[in-house]
Amino acid sequence: MTKHTTLADFRFDPDAQQDGYVDAAFIALEITRLLRDNELTTVREFLETQELADVAAYVEELDADHDLQAMRLLPLHDQAELIGYLRPSSQVAIATALSRRELARLMTAMSHDERADLYKHLEPEAQEAILPALTKAEREDLRRLAAYEEWTVGSVMTSDYATLRPEMTSSEAIEALRAQALEAETIYNAYIVNDARQLVGVVSLRDLLTARPRQPVSDVMETDPIWIRAEAEQEEAARMVARYDLLALPVLDAEDRLVGIVTADDAMDVVEDETTEDIHKSGMVAPFETSVAEATIAMLYKARIYWLVLLVFGNIFSGAGIAAFEDTIAAHLSLLFFLPLLIASGGNAGTQSATLMVRALATGDVRVSDFGWLLGREAVIALALGLTMALAVSLIGVWRGGPEIAVVVALSMVAIVLIGALLGMCLPFIFAKVDRDPAAASGPLVTSIADVLGVLMYFGIASVLLDF
Amino acid sequence: MTKHTTLADFRFDPDAQQDGYVDAAFIALEITRLLRDNELTTVREFLETQELADVAAYVEELDADHDLQAMRLLPLHDQAELIGYLRPSSQVAIATALSRRELARLMTAMSHDERADLYKHLEPEAQEAILPALTKAEREDLRRLAAYEEWTVGSVMTSDYATLRPEMTSSEAIEALRAQALEAETIYNAYIVNDARQLVGVVSLRDLLTARPRQPVSDVMETDPIWIRAEAEQEEAARMVARYDLLALPVLDAEDRLVGIVTADDAMDVVEDETTEDIHKSGMVAPFETSVAEATIAMLYKARIYWLVLLVFGNIFSGAGIAAFEDTIAAHLSLLFFLPLLIASGGNAGTQSATLMVRALATGDVRVSDFGWLLGREAVIALALGLTMALAVSLIGVWRGGPEIAVVVALSMVAIVLIGALLGMCLPFIFAKVDRDPAAASGPLVTSIADVLGVLMYFGIASVLLDF
Repeated sequence: MTKHTTLADFRFDPDAQQDGYVDAAFIALEITRLLRDNELTTVREFLETQELADVAAYVEELDADHDLQAMRLLPLHDQAELIGYLRPSSQVAIATALSRRELARLMTAMSHDERADLYKHLEPEAQEAILPALTKAEREDLRRLAAYEEWTVGSVMTSDYATLRPEMTSSEAIEALRAQALEAETIYNAYIVNDARQLVGVVSLRDLLTARPRQPVSDVMETDPIWIRAEAEQEEAARMVARYDLLALPVLDAEDRLVGIVTADDAMDVVEDETTEDIHKSGMVAPFETSVAEATIAMLYKARIYWLVLLVFGNIFSGAGIAAFEDTIAAHLSLLFFLPLLIASGGNAGTQSATLMVRALATGDVRVSDFGWLLGREAVIALALGLTMALAVSLIGVWRGGPEIAVVVALSMVAIVLIGALLGMCLPFIFAKVDRDPAAASGPLVTSIADVLGVLMYFGIASVLLDF
Repeated sequence: MTKHTTLADFRFDPDAQQDGYVDAAFIALEITRLLRDNELTTVREFLETQELADVAAYVEELDADHDLQAMRLLPLHDQAELIGYLRPSSQVAIATALSRRELARLMTAMSHDERADLYKHLEPEAQEAILPALTKAEREDLRRLAAYEEWTVGSVMTSDYATLRPEMTSSEAIEALRAQALEAETIYNAYIVNDARQLVGVVSLRDLLTARPRQPVSDVMETDPIWIRAEAEQEEAARMVARYDLLALPVLDAEDRLVGIVTADDAMDVVEDETTEDIHKSGMVAPFETSVAEATIAMLYKARIYWLVLLVFGNIFSGAGIAAFEDTIAAHLSLLFFLPLLIASGGNAGTQSATLMVRALATGDVRVSDFGWLLGREAVIALALGLTMALAVSLIGVWRGGPEIAVVVALSMVAIVLIGALLGMCLPFIFAKVDRDPAAASGPLVTSIADVLGVLMYFGIASVLLDF
């Protein structure tokens, strides 16, 4: 067995944590060696057995010349699909390295949404350069899709959907879909439009297949289909795809004309991106343009410094709270021992409640109208949590500071956990009510407010009980 | 216009925040009134215009008798689909209220994965009662699907997939799919098995349609398709569906026999559930069996008390740290003012890093092998963040405590933010390395450790510089 057959002996896995599995960097090294040895057929045959999503992972690891060389071994159709799996920066690097004619051929073969995304990422000069090499229809499609703002449905939809006429028979419709199969993103849902290109119905290939061959499409189609406006938020489209288990969601412009579809896999990507943004928000990281792996130091600094500085100023109130009780503290220095654990408990209980509510609101598991009974339930849970923890700390209290301190600490614990938990539960609802993103009402904000309240309650209770 | 036409005047929206939109509770009230007035046709006609996912929302709001009455107005096929959209507790309530014969008819019409889920939620007596009313094949299918553990691929797959024989021509194959269209969960992907029921290929309806009519399936099918074992983790299946943009993923048993498929919409549900669990974990809430809305007080108490108590004991170290420096504190009580903001800053910076890394590891945006360069980048960012914040607090330091305190506070800030951020960045990778869920290495744990380190660094620096 020669060195050049190595590739076939291993199986690729993105994490490569098991024996016999290798990661993309390993395969990229082998491909590089084979390309240098001019073993093009070996590489081509290997790549053809691989999924394009995996080939993209190898291409990401190849250096600037070899990535192009490897990509060109694939048929044009696969190249066009492959490029959609690459990171934006790699797409741009490859597009820039291609000749104008080659890039135009590739973009013609790409699905419409992916080529619009690539176009948007190109430098203005590269954008200008590519346009004349495309057909008029492609140019217009590209400009129209690229014009939608980043957060809109229009920016994630694709315009290569399949259309049918209402008067076709179902067997004619199946023939028409067969003819559109190479171009269209999906033929499993087809859209019926009138002369003004307004959407009048949707039909699935499944329904066409089970209809009688002579039955007209207008008989089989659903005449009141679910749709969304191109200017709506992409998150909304993703939610509808998930709620109604759609393969694709038709997108209409302000005049009810069909302008695109959002496919289920693009909706899944939107959900992933939006969830990431929500998670970052609840971890005090402001949105930034790209992925964590692609982000620059400056981007991440900017996304983080805002909340950090803001919370410093928030914590000044806690400091001021402590300073206000300096006399009590000076008289009972042993109180300080319990300060971190009491304060942290309020923030922790509040973080739990906020986490539960923010996520449940995001998934639709609870709604703003559920606030009443959720608050009641939370009060009971928080009281039970507070009492359990009071019991735990009162034992430490007796041991560290005697029975008086134990009473102060236990009472403070119940009050702090109760207030923290209720605060964490209410804040997301308040944010939702005033039309802000509940995710911003998350752990750190709750913790900061709970900290201030915790200091005041603890030393307040202490000064009343101990000075008495 | 009579009162009974109200339903048609409104549009349903789960959130009902816009004018003219109503929520499910409103529609349920109208339906109840119509049912009481015996206006069955009005209700049926209204329900037939609605998406079943929405009808499910109305049914959830109806009381025990009216939900059955409304459901029975729909054709059996719609009833079977509707029940899959209901919450498990509502499914069980309805199943229990139905006669055995009625339930058996409904379960026969349900998709195989959903009826297995319903079966699992029934009480043992109800399970026993329903089995004899089903056919032998259904009983076996039910038992087999219900036997898979909750976290496995087997528990989310369905067994009503479409199969083809390799020797069929593509036009015969399309005919065969037409015949399976009513029963199969999807006919857009079909599976080719040999006599031992082992998977030998996958073909899409699209490829069958574009093939020559006489071309055999074995010519058109993909012979090395992506698949997963029934015993693998369901999360893995969801990741594969997303990575390879699949409509459905075939599932094999240990003998390579096809036992089911995971459809894209079920994969999307898995992603949502797993993300919820991860988010809960990073908010210190342990997994619990059901959704937040359905959870009992006891479930939520149990899911929360563990981390709260654990972190109390973690915070004892911070308290002990403070207690160790009581002399320094007693001599410089103004140091206390800065304690909350310094400690919180380390935890906040660490929470940010941990949040970014946990999510990036979960989505595959970064891998464990990226640790080296990510650590270097994080160190630069953390230093920049620490210096910015040191500048901010040193101004407050001069104002509150004079130049000496300002120096102590600024130095501590840089050290605390740097350590906190690096800790938050490393912990998820360490967890991933030792095969634990990185999500557990999240904000609160980082914060607790950063708290202890922060106390020690702050008072350590203070005692050295101020006592000097």
